[in-house]
Amino acid sequence: MEPLSRRSFGSDNNAPVAPEILQAIVDANDGDAPGYGDDPWTSRAIERFKQHFGEATAVYLTFNGTGANVSALSSLLRPWEAVLAPASAHLQTDECGALERFNGSKVIPVATGDGKIRPADLEPSLHAGHDVHFPQPRAVSISQATEFGGVYERDELRELCAFAHERGLIVHVDGARIANAAVALGASLREMTVDLGVDVLSFGGTKNGLMLGEAICFFNPGEHLRTVVPFVQKQSMQLASKMRYLAAQLEALMTGDRWLRYASHANAMAQLLFERVRAIDGIRVTRPVRCNAVFATLDRAAIERIRREYFFFVFDPALPEVRWMTHWATTQRDVDDFAACIERAVRHG
Amino acid sequence: MEPLSRRSFGSDNNAPVAPEILQAIVDANDGDAPGYGDDPWTSRAIERFKQHFGEATAVYLTFNGTGANVSALSSLLRPWEAVLAPASAHLQTDECGALERFNGSKVIPVATGDGKIRPADLEPSLHAGHDVHFPQPRAVSISQATEFGGVYERDELRELCAFAHERGLIVHVDGARIANAAVALGASLREMTVDLGVDVLSFGGTKNGLMLGEAICFFNPGEHLRTVVPFVQKQSMQLASKMRYLAAQLEALMTGDRWLRYASHANAMAQLLFERVRAIDGIRVTRPVRCNAVFATLDRAAIERIRREYFFFVFDPALPEVRWMTHWATTQRDVDDFAACIERAVRHG
Amino acid sequence: MEPLSRRSFGSDNNAPVAPEILQAIVDANDGDAPGYGDDPWTSRAIERFKQHFGEATAVYLTFNGTGANVSALSSLLRPWEAVLAPASAHLQTDECGALERFNGSKVIPVATGDGKIRPADLEPSLHAGHDVHFPQPRAVSISQATEFGGVYERDELRELCAFAHERGLIVHVDGARIANAAVALGASLREMTVDLGVDVLSFGGTKNGLMLGEAICFFNPGEHLRTVVPFVQKQSMQLASKMRYLAAQLEALMTGDRWLRYASHANAMAQLLFERVRAIDGIRVTRPVRCNAVFATLDRAAIERIRREYFFFVFDPALPEVRWMTHWATTQRDVDDFAACIERAVRHG
Amino acid sequence: MEPLSRRSFGSDNNAPVAPEILQAIVDANDGDAPGYGDDPWTSRAIERFKQHFGEATAVYLTFNGTGANVSALSSLLRPWEAVLAPASAHLQTDECGALERFNGSKVIPVATGDGKIRPADLEPSLHAGHDVHFPQPRAVSISQATEFGGVYERDELRELCAFAHERGLIVHVDGARIANAAVALGASLREMTVDLGVDVLSFGGTKNGLMLGEAICFFNPGEHLRTVVPFVQKQSMQLASKMRYLAAQLEALMTGDRWLRYASHANAMAQLLFERVRAIDGIRVTRPVRCNAVFATLDRAAIERIRREYFFFVFDPALPEVRWMTHWATTQRDVDDFAACIERAVRHG
Repeated sequence: MEPLSRRSFGSDNNAPVAPEILQAIVDANDGDAPGYGDDPWTSRAIERFKQHFGEATAVYLTFNGTGANVSALSSLLRPWEAVLAPASAHLQTDECGALERFNGSKVIPVATGDGKIRPADLEPSLHAGHDVHFPQPRAVSISQATEFGGVYERDELRELCAFAHERGLIVHVDGARIANAAVALGASLREMTVDLGVDVLSFGGTKNGLMLGEAICFFNPGEHLRTVVPFVQKQSMQLASKMRYLAAQLEALMTGDRWLRYASHANAMAQLLFERVRAIDGIRVTRPVRCNAVFATLDRAAIERIRREYFFFVFDPALPEVRWMTHWATTQRDVDDFAACIERAVRHG
Repeated sequence: MEPLSRRSFGSDNNAPVAPEILQAIVDANDGDAPGYGDDPWTSRAIERFKQHFGEATAVYLTFNGTGANVSALSSLLRPWEAVLAPASAHLQTDECGALERFNGSKVIPVATGDGKIRPADLEPSLHAGHDVHFPQPRAVSISQATEFGGVYERDELRELCAFAHERGLIVHVDGARIANAAVALGASLREMTVDLGVDVLSFGGTKNGLMLGEAICFFNPGEHLRTVVPFVQKQSMQLASKMRYLAAQLEALMTGDRWLRYASHANAMAQLLFERVRAIDGIRVTRPVRCNAVFATLDRAAIERIRREYFFFVFDPALPEVRWMTHWATTQRDVDDFAACIERAVRHG
Repeated sequence: MEPLSRRSFGSDNNAPVAPEILQAIVDANDGDAPGYGDDPWTSRAIERFKQHFGEATAVYLTFNGTGANVSALSSLLRPWEAVLAPASAHLQTDECGALERFNGSKVIPVATGDGKIRPADLEPSLHAGHDVHFPQPRAVSISQATEFGGVYERDELRELCAFAHERGLIVHVDGARIANAAVALGASLREMTVDLGVDVLSFGGTKNGLMLGEAICFFNPGEHLRTVVPFVQKQSMQLASKMRYLAAQLEALMTGDRWLRYASHANAMAQLLFERVRAIDGIRVTRPVRCNAVFATLDRAAIERIRREYFFFVFDPALPEVRWMTHWATTQRDVDDFAACIERAVRHG
Repeated sequence: MEPLSRRSFGSDNNAPVAPEILQAIVDANDGDAPGYGDDPWTSRAIERFKQHFGEATAVYLTFNGTGANVSALSSLLRPWEAVLAPASAHLQTDECGALERFNGSKVIPVATGDGKIRPADLEPSLHAGHDVHFPQPRAVSISQATEFGGVYERDELRELCAFAHERGLIVHVDGARIANAAVALGASLREMTVDLGVDVLSFGGTKNGLMLGEAICFFNPGEHLRTVVPFVQKQSMQLASKMRYLAAQLEALMTGDRWLRYASHANAMAQLLFERVRAIDGIRVTRPVRCNAVFATLDRAAIERIRREYFFFVFDPALPEVRWMTHWATTQRDVDDFAACIERAVRHG
């Protein structure tokens, strides 16, 4: 548990807080404010999200991504309603069954090659149910960007939304890295969500420069839903008392093009890393580098040598396949040093 | 949703972040760090808690107080085990049934006059159960300080712990305001918890100068419990990815006597307010002022007049009884101005 | 665990199955039938309930009373919605927190002297909530007959329903002993439920001559509710595969005046017992005998002497207060013998 | 909802109650008996199970199979512990997510070709977890016989149990059709469960001649588990008040070789049906006929023609593949008539 003396390529949640965000926190520390969101910072943050996603959007701030996903889905699903998600989804693999426990809903994992669900992948699960014996599929949850650093193209997502809606399914997007996907797609936040038919988004802040904070955005909330979500948020332990400090960060992130700049930089650094390592003999980059992650297979001993100097995860120990992530604070120098370390480690073998 | 131009007497969670705490956040914003608590700030924060409460203490950091209470109790109770708590407990009145939903456990509200449970109050509930038909009482949860600004004297709490342990009950303390109680008792944190027999504490940071952050402290965790809590914490959506920012705040709070200074000041300001208002005709202070709250009954019209200038809650609309809270940042001038406003409002009638 | 050689005065669930009911089971054992209620016995049983309660009634058969109460309320309440019930309600004291675990909903126990809620008793709980911090009261659940052998008069229940509806509360009746109450009130099933404003009833069969089987009756089910209940019933493990055997019993019970005859007899036997014991020195009958239970206080030693010969429960060990229950099969001779035993036991002292 | 004028080949739960079982119910209808299992019938039924499975066995009676599976697993798993089961398991496909809702536990569906899990199938899921982020695999649940009418050979199950135990997994067997599997294996109940390493069994009665009733059998219950199960059973709404009527059936089933005779007959009838239809042109029997089910593909129009006369399920509408089930009451004549009908329907095309 020594502090990291070098840049981490482990996760974008290993990053520090971006300076403008930290400043926003400091600025918010001004006098007293009512609790639980009844403060001007929260009002302004919500306003910002409406500017990005449309006036109809209902916005709720949560502590973390699991909280956002679980609160969003628990507001929409009854316990006998199921959500279909890629087998690789954070919701399925990294939330310790929080949705099952909190809401009782079954998560139906859908096998995919690349973490992306296509309409055809959903078909078998839609017919699995029969009467009351199987939970009713009610939502599909996808990750944009995916856990493999990929993205749904706009046409792909539009098609998936249309397919889902035809079958009465709500479309939820886990947007822990929505900003990175926006950069990859060259689209505005609205163009890549609301305009394609997405119903609800877990908008990620923590992995894009914040200390903590996510925002659930319902794009077409009915009156009923607006009465439901606040109770779900509270009962799921995701209602901050000193809400202004979450809100100030999200307001700052959504002001100007900060959210875009942080993500653009992170993506660019991954691209640079990809350029640096693609030519190294013994390394095979295994997935398209669209956002801020490089996946690669390389020699097990080489991995161990690199890990003596840098922190990162072996994503699939069987291959082994590593995941190298960049973030808003990763520098060109960091990438150069890391790539050099990788090259040494691989050559040494 | 205008910013408050004046001091709030609504809640200690209306306060800003104390400057040393904010500085600790800024200082922690240094380079990359592994997520989920595997960082040196978290190690040091845990170390601080051990210094206060004893080496055996197992410490887990959560986002908020409801998260601390629910994660703590859900680590200890099976769904058919019940917790007895004062009918006025935050756990019963202000957590929206989060424990019931997350863990299935029944909360048995115990009627009290002042928010404090005495052993005799527990007796009826201990005999209520019969075989499998009623949930097994397994824990008693009390608030120190209480929601009425009172405290359990050390002898009272020792006796309650002994009584509970004889009957196989775990003692949980909701310490959202444990520091205020420590000040009132003139006792160290350890003397007022571990040494009296308390088993587990939700240690409050948010209401004592932090941006957010609480710490669950298990004083005698067995090996089994240590394997259980991390999963409960994660599944209850209370595991921060950028944990260092919670940890840095709690480390700073527990360093030196900061936790004590903030709470001492808050309590002193309540005492001052009490002195100022006790003599005003038409105001009756309804409860002993031991910590940072003054409860009083006064004329309904007067209340409305004061609320035009200051934010606070009418605790019991029937009487009506108001609650005026102070905090680390309340100044003597704030109190003087507020008391003057109250006096004007009451006299005007 | 010897068989009881004598009549039990322990509970109406100690009774055997009434001969007409057993015959209905035997008659239903004829060839094959589709599972899960898609059979003619179930159709006919539902038809019978509609004849009693009105065509609009939606009927669902469950295994036991806890299953009926929990399935009924879980179909109506979201996890952050609470149900108010007498502190003495079966739902609160005898279902091991099944509703809390299955649905997450808080049960708010309301103190009463006699197990009956009056409108004024609800007021404090209706104001306890504030915003999202406390679960929203959404239903009131009462027992008719009560767990103390009492009944709500028709005017009382009409008034309670009106009060509840004005405040947006659903009225659920736990009718484990609804037939006994109907006898006491001299009213038809419809007159004492639908016509007074009751929204949903757990109709009890097990305690009125059946082997097992209860019926949830929703009196004004909307389209939405009709899509919800079957999933709740299934997910709560209360959907019988060989449903015809539950249905045949309930059909037989509701045919002609059987349900009334069984309950009339049970009530009459309790009245007879009351007559026999009221005059015994040392026995004080503590509650009005309206249905099939006699509550009394008597000497602790006498209780022990009686229990050597007869099975019954000490309802409140503190007083001590006993509960003696009769049922469809209790005979006049049983009562005479039991009363004689009681008299001997009390005199002996 | 007409009564079935002909034998059903839809499910073994379409069968009537076997005459000896019905007689046992009638015989149990003798006088009063204490509730909730404190009666001699329950004692004797438990004794019978111990004779079959060994003295150490702890036995609990439930209403239905879902109740048995959920109560058994909820007694063993904490909410953050997962159970691996074939994707075709009743637990996964036919219990409407009852385990997820009641216990919060994730069910991890394991893909199989034939509904049988081999050790190698478990490997990927055992490595899927990482720290607290994924629920801990804690049990494997298999169906014996499988939902496809197949069986685990004794060696297969012994190997699976050994593999599971080495990895700290509990082995649960959903034995809704355990008797049919016993017949197929030519083994005693003990030889095919306890002796192979099975930890807990949901023993099925409903599908083998009972009106209703299953038995959870824990083969090596510790002291702790014995205190846990009764509360789980009660809280899961699976504790019958008039337990003697469940117990009497199970006692009768386990007395002599009744359980074996019923299942042997059912299996023999499936074998006969297999012989009759295997030679028909246009029918392909798709799975080995080991127990009481015949799976086959045939022309869609032929299926519709048969269904005009007989009730059965199209198991996989895509192929289409039908499932024809036999049971204790199916006669040779029933099979002959059904086979003749099938032949006519297929030829007609």
